[in-house]
Parts: sequence; structure tokens; C-alpha cells
Amino acid sequence: MSEQRPDGGQSALAIICGAGSLPFALADAAARQGRRVVLFALRGWADPARVGAYPHHWAWIGQFGRFMRIAAQEGCRDVTFIGSVTRPSLLSMRPDLLALRQLPDVVRMFRGGDDYLLGGIARVFEKHGMRLVAPKDIAPELLMASGVLGLGLPREQDYADIERGLALLRATSPFDIGQAVVVAANQVLAVEGPEGTDRMLDRIAELRRIGRIRTPPGIGVLVKAPKIGQDHRFDLPTIGPDTVDRTAAANLAGIAVVAGSTIVAEPERVAAAANRAKIFVIGVADDGPAP
Amino acid sequence: MSEQRPDGGQSALAIICGAGSLPFALADAAARQGRRVVLFALRGWADPARVGAYPHHWAWIGQFGRFMRIAAQEGCRDVTFIGSVTRPSLLSMRPDLLALRQLPDVVRMFRGGDDYLLGGIARVFEKHGMRLVAPKDIAPELLMASGVLGLGLPREQDYADIERGLALLRATSPFDIGQAVVVAANQVLAVEGPEGTDRMLDRIAELRRIGRIRTPPGIGVLVKAPKIGQDHRFDLPTIGPDTVDRTAAANLAGIAVVAGSTIVAEPERVAAAANRAKIFVIGVADDGPAP
Repeated sequence: MSEQRPDGGQSALAIICGAGSLPFALADAAARQGRRVVLFALRGWADPARVGAYPHHWAWIGQFGRFMRIAAQEGCRDVTFIGSVTRPSLLSMRPDLLALRQLPDVVRMFRGGDDYLLGGIARVFEKHGMRLVAPKDIAPELLMASGVLGLGLPREQDYADIERGLALLRATSPFDIGQAVVVAANQVLAVEGPEGTDRMLDRIAELRRIGRIRTPPGIGVLVKAPKIGQDHRFDLPTIGPDTVDRTAAANLAGIAVVAGSTIVAEPERVAAAANRAKIFVIGVADDGPAP
Repeated sequence: MSEQRPDGGQSALAIICGAGSLPFALADAAARQGRRVVLFALRGWADPARVGAYPHHWAWIGQFGRFMRIAAQEGCRDVTFIGSVTRPSLLSMRPDLLALRQLPDVVRMFRGGDDYLLGGIARVFEKHGMRLVAPKDIAPELLMASGVLGLGLPREQDYADIERGLALLRATSPFDIGQAVVVAANQVLAVEGPEGTDRMLDRIAELRRIGRIRTPPGIGVLVKAPKIGQDHRFDLPTIGPDTVDRTAAANLAGIAVVAGSTIVAEPERVAAAANRAKIFVIGVADDGPAP
């Protein structure tokens, strides 16, 4: 490529983009550092309305050969992935020839849980000479800091619920399940499964509506934490303005995440939404012992 | 009372009846033993269509004084409760004077989880001279035996899923949450919260429909186990024909429960439903170590 590199030698960054606004927050952060970015927008996941604002290529999940070819043309050696791609079925993929040659590895990945899947994908990229870079290393400003976003503060009972939630997540972590629970006045109202955080919060709103939840409205905390031993590079828990809105709709008191290990999409909007809904959003340390 | 006791001296049995068919299965079992039964049908929970076939009195939850008065008139010293009463709100109760005097205890009960609630209710009855008897001691034939009900047998992967489910339930047990999980090809598809087993199974059917579950249909096991340290007298996990139908609708391979610690409502109908749906229902020992 004859083009002058604006980053003074650093390779262009390939960003494989799933759903949501995070890919664009990451692209903006990398661009602010003077780095050239090339988006690989996953069909069915990446937001078509926003991809157009960046240098980009569309791809199906599984088009690994196509990715490697374009990445080489674009001078990308570093690659990252960000944005949600919730459990794609094997049938929803369009594996090309190079991808098919990874098939034995891929099949193995699908037999484990998320942890295994992520680690497996990382290994496939690295085997082909790409350097995987974690979003949090590219843009540490995307991580939740210690303390609150917005004006709301947890009360004493909320802190107890946060502790219990973190302890429960430590207990379920070896089982490779969700990264979120809801605890209200010491009672566990939900443990996240493949439905994801949003649907879990919607379930709480519904269970309240039909009278299956005993704790009064305004009590309870959504607690999110990364799984122990998880490959933190690519699957950190994430919250955004929508998480705040659904937490408020579920009539909970707030959200607690692990500081330094949680990505916040659009922190200003998260803070504004939390203030509007009068709930707290706090980053806490998770270094307590198991109960 | 001038009436001749058909049980040769054993006191009449007061059965406080929640929802479902279990109260009547228990009443029939006690009657088969020649014991006189008096049903205390909880308004809003007990099935009005079936209560009429037994000597009975209707009562609201909270009418403790009324219960004690009628129980004395009826010559009941033994009392049991059976049938589901899912987390009644304080507002849905009609506490009478004697109940109000238990209020400090009751309030404390509502601050813990199910375990605490059940233990608390038991203590209140015992304090007033009633002898609490467990359904399983009255009618051991209601308990799931080791082995299968119906013709279906687990395959190798199913046994692995059952093991993982039991291990997960051991891990979550200290948190006083649900007694059921669904595991499919080692992946945890759901952990039961206050929604109960039925709604959890419906959720899996829905998540399959919208493509959030990666494992193919026909794989996965509903695993139910009593909580460790739970007061097993009154809150054993329960399955019935409806559980089988919903497990089949969720496209799972079968149901595993802990033998000797699970109540089966209408075992013949459970077996018939399992055969019709081609799923297995198995009672297993839960004596494995934590993972």
C-alpha cells in the first residue's frame, strides 16, 4: 500500500463488529489515537446505519478466508472483535474454504460453553498470523471505573445484595453460565442464562407484574461480573443506556459491575439514564472470598 | 366429638391445601390407611372442583386463629401442608387475631428465602401444640423411587448433563434459589428463580424458537433436587404430568430428580405422558461430591 500511515507505523486495526454501539465507540477511540481502523461488519449483527461512517467491509460469520485476504490488503495485522454475537447457530454461518479447514477446531468449540468458544476463535486467528488485541487494551476508557456513574448511591441493603450477587456469580462461574444475577433483599430473583441480561430483566418486570416476586419495587440489584478464568480480552460484561432503562423497568434499585472488568457503552448516556430513572450504577471491586 | 374414630385412636389429619392435585393424592393415601382427613383449602390456591369430595373448610392464608379453632373441633392434632402456594404477598393474606400475634415472627420469615419461610411456619404451628407431619411420612408412595418412570432411558450425554445439573444445584444451594436447572450437552440453559419450573421450561421453548439456544432439539435434561439443608418435610421438589408435557415442549430429552426426595403427582399419568412424548423420567441418587 502506498498510502501514508497516519499512525506512524502501527498497523491498521481490523475491528470485527457485532451488534450494538460498542464497535463504533471502539473505532472512535482508536481513531482518536491516530490509528487507522477497518471495520468488518458481521451481516445480521452489525448496525448498517452506522457502519457506513467508517472504512468497512461486510462479511458473514465464517468468511474467514475473505477476512484474511482483505485484512492483508488493508494492512491490518491487529484484529479485535467487539459487539454482541449471541450464540450463532452453525446454520447461520457461511464458512468459506479457509474456514472449513478450521472445521475440526470449530466443531470442538461448539461443544463447550462461551469460554471455550472464545478461546478457540482466538487461537484460530493467531494461528494465521493475526495479532488479537483486546478492546480494553485499545480503549481503556471504555472500562467502568470504581465508583458511581451518575448521582445515585447504593443503600446499605443494596451493598448486601451486591455482595450476595458477586458470591453467587463466583459459585456459578465454573459452570460457564451467565455473567449476571439479580438479588433483592438477599433473595435471588434471577440467574442469567442464554437469554441474556436484557431478557432476564424483562422477566423480572413480568414476574413482578404477575405477583411472583415478593420484594417490593425499588429493591434489588442487577449484578454483573466476568466469569472466573474467562478470557477477558473479548467477552467482558457490558452495560449501556438500554441496560439502565430495563433495570428501571424491572423496578430495581441499581446496577453493580466489576470495576476495570466491564465495558460501558456510552457512559454519558448511561449516567443520564440512571439519573432520570433514579437508580445507581456502581463499579465495585470483586476480590471478596467465596461465602 | 362423639364420632367413632376409624383410625383406632390416631388423630384426624389436617391437610392445608395449596394448588394442584397433590393435596388430593395425599388425602387419598391417608384415607387408604383408614385415617380421617380434614382439608383446609386455601382460597386462591386449592382447586374448588376437587375440594368438595372431602370433608373440608375454606380459609384464607393468615387465618391462623380460625384454623386452630376448627382443627380443635375436628380433633386434628396432626397437620400437614401440601400443594403449591407460590410466594404470597403480605397483602394477599387475611391475618386474624391469632395470626397477628405471630406477626413479628412472620415479618422475619419474609425477609429470608423459602427455607426460612418454611421453617418459620413450622415453628409457629408447633408452638401452638399442633404436630407437623411431612407428606412423605404420611404417604411414602408419593416419593419418586430410583430408576425410570415409563419406558425412556437416558443416553450417555444425558447422564453427563444430569451430573452437571446436580453439581450446579449443589453450588447454588447456599443461595436459597430454585431447585431446578436445565443442562444440555454440558451447557446450562436455565437456572430456576421465582418463576418456578413451569415458566422456566416455557422460557427454554421460547429461547429455542427465537434461536438463542445452540444445542439441537432433543438434547438436555431438566434436573431437580432439594436444596441442601432444606426442611425437606414440606417443600420437596415435585413433578407431575404437566412437568412432562412442558419438558417435551421445551424439546428436552428428559427429567432427572433425586430418588426419595421428590414427590411425583400421579405417577401413572407421568409415565404415560413420558411415553407419549418419548422422554425419560429418572430418579437418581445425589451423593456425588461437588465438582
